[in-house]
Amino acid sequence: MPGVISRILPRDQTFFAMFVELAETVKEGATALVEMLRRYDDPQGYAEKIKEIEHKGDTITHNLITKLNQTFITPFDREDIHHLSSRIDDVLDLVDAASSRMVLYQIRTVRPGVRELAEVLEQSAARILDAVRVLEKRDGILDLCIEINRLENESDRLSRDLIARLFAEEKDPVEILKWKEIIETLETGTDKAEDVANVIETITVKGA
Amino acid sequence: MPGVISRILPRDQTFFAMFVELAETVKEGATALVEMLRRYDDPQGYAEKIKEIEHKGDTITHNLITKLNQTFITPFDREDIHHLSSRIDDVLDLVDAASSRMVLYQIRTVRPGVRELAEVLEQSAARILDAVRVLEKRDGILDLCIEINRLENESDRLSRDLIARLFAEEKDPVEILKWKEIIETLETGTDKAEDVANVIETITVKGA
Amino acid sequence: MPGVISRILPRDQTFFAMFVELAETVKEGATALVEMLRRYDDPQGYAEKIKEIEHKGDTITHNLITKLNQTFITPFDREDIHHLSSRIDDVLDLVDAASSRMVLYQIRTVRPGVRELAEVLEQSAARILDAVRVLEKRDGILDLCIEINRLENESDRLSRDLIARLFAEEKDPVEILKWKEIIETLETGTDKAEDVANVIETITVKGA
Repeated sequence: MPGVISRILPRDQTFFAMFVELAETVKEGATALVEMLRRYDDPQGYAEKIKEIEHKGDTITHNLITKLNQTFITPFDREDIHHLSSRIDDVLDLVDAASSRMVLYQIRTVRPGVRELAEVLEQSAARILDAVRVLEKRDGILDLCIEINRLENESDRLSRDLIARLFAEEKDPVEILKWKEIIETLETGTDKAEDVANVIETITVKGA
Repeated sequence: MPGVISRILPRDQTFFAMFVELAETVKEGATALVEMLRRYDDPQGYAEKIKEIEHKGDTITHNLITKLNQTFITPFDREDIHHLSSRIDDVLDLVDAASSRMVLYQIRTVRPGVRELAEVLEQSAARILDAVRVLEKRDGILDLCIEINRLENESDRLSRDLIARLFAEEKDPVEILKWKEIIETLETGTDKAEDVANVIETITVKGA
Repeated sequence: MPGVISRILPRDQTFFAMFVELAETVKEGATALVEMLRRYDDPQGYAEKIKEIEHKGDTITHNLITKLNQTFITPFDREDIHHLSSRIDDVLDLVDAASSRMVLYQIRTVRPGVRELAEVLEQSAARILDAVRVLEKRDGILDLCIEINRLENESDRLSRDLIARLFAEEKDPVEILKWKEIIETLETGTDKAEDVANVIETITVKGA
């Protein structure tokens, strides 16, 4: 019987460890994006670095799902593990999408307020990492979910202001097209973070 | 034994009642949107009212999912309850997105045909409410799903015409950008209504 | 006992046959799109033909899901059958979206590189068909999934180049708006093909 337990428990811990690794990667990507926008001296270099981080996230997600499909007993619902890893990976995809569009659209200077929007996304990623670290013990996890929801509201408000100003101030339609998409991509990143919080909340309520 | 039943049945009825409440909220939002576009004397006021309705919808959806996670026996598949509530809430999100963009883009006058497109969305919301009201007895529910699909086709045809006319008639690229998105947002609303119909159909066929 | 088997097996085979029929329809649509872009002598005619193919795909998907809901024993997880059919149908929706936008936006000539992007989508559809044909025996199925992933990377690279050139070369903002969306629609088609490959991989790993 202890033999059975010892075969099951390490697997559980592997899942928790892999989620932490994935969330660390998302946080790393979001921090690189904020730095890219703050310095804006080498957008190409930062975009390549973020692309590498995004590939690392893909690999961890892929390994997580492969392990899920091979594991009989899991620490929580299979569907929830699947959703949680996919949703966390989605946040990183948006970080990558935002940084690569800066390069693709040959953006020369960062519009005021855009870096602040990316910082809200970075904070969301940091709170996801905090939440995933306590996924097993669940201490304070619901407060972290509430904070991620608050950050999504802040991002929503900030991005609306930025888009209103963009249409009011910018005269070049091509610039409007480019920046509207970059702003929306950053906002969608915090939307995806909110999706992560919703999955975490579901897991936590189920296990209560 | 009657004790067990009495503990289960009220819960079932709660789910049905919550779906009706959610669908009523979506219908309320869609009706406010049509009124906003018809009068267009106070877009800001209507957008704020719709935002409040959207928050109400979020709360009902959240309560529905919390209850789902705490309930052992449910009137139909847990996944289906989850999908149905999320999909209905998606329709309301699109109603809110359309109305808030009218304000964000500082739209002064409503282009011809756009109110009619919103009316199709309102009809879809009304048919969702009808369908949810008969979710338990299922009388005529599949005909309502067929009607929601028909409305989606009508919305698709209307929005294509509007976008073709927009590109043919409007010379200002910024106006094209704004209206293209508003039209697409309204059309996506009826797409989401069709997703609701598909979930209802799945639930109905399963239970047959 | 053989009676039971004979009642179950034909059903299984029906699912596999329906997936092949669906994937053939997607391949047919993608091939028509490439031909439309190569000749570009009758966009309206091709778009109508592709719309018909798309309706055929909808019908097959609908029948597949109806059969799924009525079948007790299925060859693999119900959720996976549902996901697989929806994801394959998504690819066809994008083929249709790309072709109908060519007509809607009254495109007169096809920009260089766009047909090549559609050819990558056609190849993805061909590999999905190959994979679905060996879904039962699984011979070489993972290599096909890897190839679909490779094609998605190629499409991603091609579409980025096309969008960078579009912003660099095209001066008319309305043309940028139109072509940006057509290019992104084609790229999203191969993204959806990658989603198909991921579902196939999940099914294959589970059954190993």
